Amino acid sequence: MRATILHAPGDVRVEDRDRPVVQEPTDAIIKLVATCVCGSDLWPYRGDDALTEPVAMGHEYVGIVEEIGANVHNIRVGQFVVGSFFASDNTCEICRSGYQSGCVHRQGVGGAQAEYMRVPLADGTLVATPGIPDADKIPALLAASDVLGTGWFAAKAAEVGPGKTVAVVGDGAVGLLGVLAAKHMGAERIIAMSRHADRQALAREFGATDIVEERGDEGVEKIKELTGGLGAHSVLEAVGTQESMMQAIRATRRGGHVGYVGVAHDVELPGLEMFFSHVHLHGGPAPVRDHLPELIDLILTGRINPGKVFDLELPLDQAAEGYKAMDGRRAIKVLLRP
Amino acid sequence: MRATILHAPGDVRVEDRDRPVVQEPTDAIIKLVATCVCGSDLWPYRGDDALTEPVAMGHEYVGIVEEIGANVHNIRVGQFVVGSFFASDNTCEICRSGYQSGCVHRQGVGGAQAEYMRVPLADGTLVATPGIPDADKIPALLAASDVLGTGWFAAKAAEVGPGKTVAVVGDGAVGLLGVLAAKHMGAERIIAMSRHADRQALAREFGATDIVEERGDEGVEKIKELTGGLGAHSVLEAVGTQESMMQAIRATRRGGHVGYVGVAHDVELPGLEMFFSHVHLHGGPAPVRDHLPELIDLILTGRINPGKVFDLELPLDQAAEGYKAMDGRRAIKVLLRP
Repeated sequence: MRATILHAPGDVRVEDRDRPVVQEPTDAIIKLVATCVCGSDLWPYRGDDALTEPVAMGHEYVGIVEEIGANVHNIRVGQFVVGSFFASDNTCEICRSGYQSGCVHRQGVGGAQAEYMRVPLADGTLVATPGIPDADKIPALLAASDVLGTGWFAAKAAEVGPGKTVAVVGDGAVGLLGVLAAKHMGAERIIAMSRHADRQALAREFGATDIVEERGDEGVEKIKELTGGLGAHSVLEAVGTQESMMQAIRATRRGGHVGYVGVAHDVELPGLEMFFSHVHLHGGPAPVRDHLPELIDLILTGRINPGKVFDLELPLDQAAEGYKAMDGRRAIKVLLRP
Repeated sequence: MRATILHAPGDVRVEDRDRPVVQEPTDAIIKLVATCVCGSDLWPYRGDDALTEPVAMGHEYVGIVEEIGANVHNIRVGQFVVGSFFASDNTCEICRSGYQSGCVHRQGVGGAQAEYMRVPLADGTLVATPGIPDADKIPALLAASDVLGTGWFAAKAAEVGPGKTVAVVGDGAVGLLGVLAAKHMGAERIIAMSRHADRQALAREFGATDIVEERGDEGVEKIKELTGGLGAHSVLEAVGTQESMMQAIRATRRGGHVGYVGVAHDVELPGLEMFFSHVHLHGGPAPVRDHLPELIDLILTGRINPGKVFDLELPLDQAAEGYKAMDGRRAIKVLLRP
């Protein structure tokens, strides 16, 4: 089968690999219907994450179940399924508390930018749709697999709700879908922080009421201006740098909430400033599995369309071009068709 | 009047000073009935906080209102009042959200280790008791002024509740009263981290079900052992060092809550570890004003007795001895009688 391999920073190749097989009785093998390139894939692509050997890329996926292990009972061959980047048993105490991405048996899921992939702990990880969805729903369901689920978690972690003012740091797919999540959760005012016209437009389409182009301390000042000097009730952080984290914390009012989902890179939070900021801080790898049933329902009933974040679609064999387009910010998010 | 002045690290003197007067129409002057030495007073006493000039010490107080400014309407001369370390207007949006210690008009309150003190924004800061309380309630009401209010906030910030396992890092007065707060809030299991027999005994009296003597990573391992490998649901941090913060974060289960109230000294929180910890982090200077009405009621009706943290009582003139006793851990907390 064809699979996307990162050999070195900037060196993405689509190559022939063995088709994955069931290794554990709880595994499922999926034939990918669609997959995509993640903002977090760009860290190793740019050399910002160390790479010691060639890596099969991709952790966002929707597909048809091709084969299941002997111990898989909830998922059946032929079903259309959505999964996410951590496999979870969905039965342990941590899963039951809504943190499947912190499951005591969690395993990373990889190799989704391919024709087939192996998903461990299939019963606890995959969510089947009722029937095979229409083709026009595929991008949205694929978004649910990671970027929507992650933006959703950021909004929940930031305690977004009716009457609140929400600011979103980061205008990648996760940030933009954080805007969509905030809108769905009833936020009164949603401030998107972006300096790219195309992303600003999509943010407004998703529900942003205000755009702030400034960054860092200037961006914070702007948020303060828009909120009577207090800062936003809820701030979503979807970048993962020192600057973006501090921007999020400083843009939040005392007693407010920061939901952070950007994978922290060289971030150190100053204790004394955190202490006096009075913010609530919560985040981490999104428990997408927890949100999937609700998200799938919202998508299939047409109440949200997160699929709009895909502004470039390529055949799997052109994955390298997809990475380039995202790295150069020519595309917000690239969908790949195996 | 007599007042306690810190001249230099280790150099505490009780001296004659001018009696404070009403400076702003929102001020009140209080005749102190009792005051005390705070764990945070030990930072400058030990030279860990810089001191550029002699400072009038003390921010924990109960007393009788002696005089009020022309704009004070809720507080009357002759009332017995409890206040806390930040003055607040109790009307701004931040106050109304329960964060009076983050009030947009907040002012530090100081000089409480004296015969008289000035309290700014008296209407929004002081809470009067119904009548003059019995003498045996004074230590408990004084505790409400800071250490109880702070331990209470730590427990709330850590989302303590029925059925939860709570760990408390720090066995000073705040940590011990965090145990009391957790008990009152219905925690099922309360693990106090302490290696001092007298403090362990008081922790048990306040409701601790388990004691862990180990610190740092060993302490974390012990908490994990006691919680099926998961960590506590809620961890209260009442120290404020790098070690205690990391101990608190690492002792918390994924999806759990850290409530931190130790004033952070040279603390840097590693972003990536925070990200993968999945903890909720909240804390800062406790909004004691928000808790005072409930705490005063619980004390006057005899349902809690936080006054037990005072294990040494001295006349104000011996304040220096009080600092020494707390610094040497010969006393948990020292009450001073002006």
